[in-house]
Amino acid sequence: MENPNSKISLKAGERLDDLNRNGYMIIQNKDKFCFGMDAVLLSGFADARPGEKVIDLGTGTGVIPILMEAKTEGEHFTALEIQEESVDMARRSVAFNELDSKIDIVKGDIKCATEIFKKASFDVVTTNPPYMNDNHGLKNPEVPKAIARHEVLCSLEDVIRESALLLKPGGRLYMIHRPHRLIDIIFQMRVHKLEPKRIQFVHPYIDKEANMVLIEAVRGGKSMVRVEEPLIIYSEPGKYTKQVLEEYYNA
Amino acid sequence: MENPNSKISLKAGERLDDLNRNGYMIIQNKDKFCFGMDAVLLSGFADARPGEKVIDLGTGTGVIPILMEAKTEGEHFTALEIQEESVDMARRSVAFNELDSKIDIVKGDIKCATEIFKKASFDVVTTNPPYMNDNHGLKNPEVPKAIARHEVLCSLEDVIRESALLLKPGGRLYMIHRPHRLIDIIFQMRVHKLEPKRIQFVHPYIDKEANMVLIEAVRGGKSMVRVEEPLIIYSEPGKYTKQVLEEYYNA
Repeated sequence: MENPNSKISLKAGERLDDLNRNGYMIIQNKDKFCFGMDAVLLSGFADARPGEKVIDLGTGTGVIPILMEAKTEGEHFTALEIQEESVDMARRSVAFNELDSKIDIVKGDIKCATEIFKKASFDVVTTNPPYMNDNHGLKNPEVPKAIARHEVLCSLEDVIRESALLLKPGGRLYMIHRPHRLIDIIFQMRVHKLEPKRIQFVHPYIDKEANMVLIEAVRGGKSMVRVEEPLIIYSEPGKYTKQVLEEYYNA
Repeated sequence: MENPNSKISLKAGERLDDLNRNGYMIIQNKDKFCFGMDAVLLSGFADARPGEKVIDLGTGTGVIPILMEAKTEGEHFTALEIQEESVDMARRSVAFNELDSKIDIVKGDIKCATEIFKKASFDVVTTNPPYMNDNHGLKNPEVPKAIARHEVLCSLEDVIRESALLLKPGGRLYMIHRPHRLIDIIFQMRVHKLEPKRIQFVHPYIDKEANMVLIEAVRGGKSMVRVEEPLIIYSEPGKYTKQVLEEYYNA
């Protein structure tokens, strides 16, 4: 078997991780930002249908479009990222997986997405945006991990407003975020005419509060939302539930 | 043991049901409207502290203030109901349980609550309002069950607006509603400066979508909400989960 590392030159600190989908691999740097369960959950919750054009806002190393390409019938995936190092890793991962015709990695700012892309030109937006709005206490707001996790360069409203503008009428936004921001998310979505239609809360254990929330919203949709069965991650420490294994790991 | 029926005269179609709390009983008429799991869940989710004044909007037969009197330290409970027959049953239940000094049943319209009561005069509002906004298809919108279940006489916004006006700053609204209205509820709450702080979804089974939602909102509260562990009602058909038995039936 071919050694995958022979196909690619990794930079200092980088490693090549197996995505367990279609044999796809991803370049990451553990000192910067590695994808987590949230990216896996979002790519499982989101859907793209045959012929649909998808954009991922704040793609980081590109994990969501790469996973979405593997699991959906979406026609083309665009991915926007502001951090140069992440853009570089994402582009090399796309090339390594021979997905250049399916995935475009674009360097740019979410706040100005509609200056880069045509309005109402996407069927689907996916986004795993910065979660934290407690920027004031940040010691190093310019470091890559802070930019990926905190609303340093773009706010929740920026992400929702630009998503609404990029989507065609009837287009779908798939977002993963933290439940403590739920009211802000829902309020801003409705202000920007994105109507949540499907929500799933993620709980680490059955008897613990939710620590993630998955939302599907439709541009111009009618008011009527479904709150799906809870997604429980662990049955005991270190042991995934049957639900997670079946839905996300094809077990 | 005294026959409880000897203390009270029931009208045609009425029956006396045991609330399994403090020996309290309630008069109901199965042809009109009997309380359900939603009232039990709301009275378990809501809290009233020593000295607090509580109002229940749309009380029906008064089940929520009677259960709240039993389980909380709240000082006084007012209950507003528009339907004469329900008011009459609620008053007789209060008298039967010897709670006249703790619970007032007031006949009146939720839409005009602040014409009946002083603004900012309650610490807590509880409400289990009409759930359904599909009034157009109703054959008999004037019948008691329709009025209790559908937004015939008051809308969701009426209930939220009047709750906000009745509450003192920092006062708490406890509402049970249907998850499909979640976006309307959250949007209206924020419009009226009621910030949701605690949400619990109720699922009939662990693998089914939510069919009820419990919300605690604070008048003038800051944006930050907690989504609690899911409340699962049945472990198998007809069998309550340990969670329900422990939290609601003191098992």
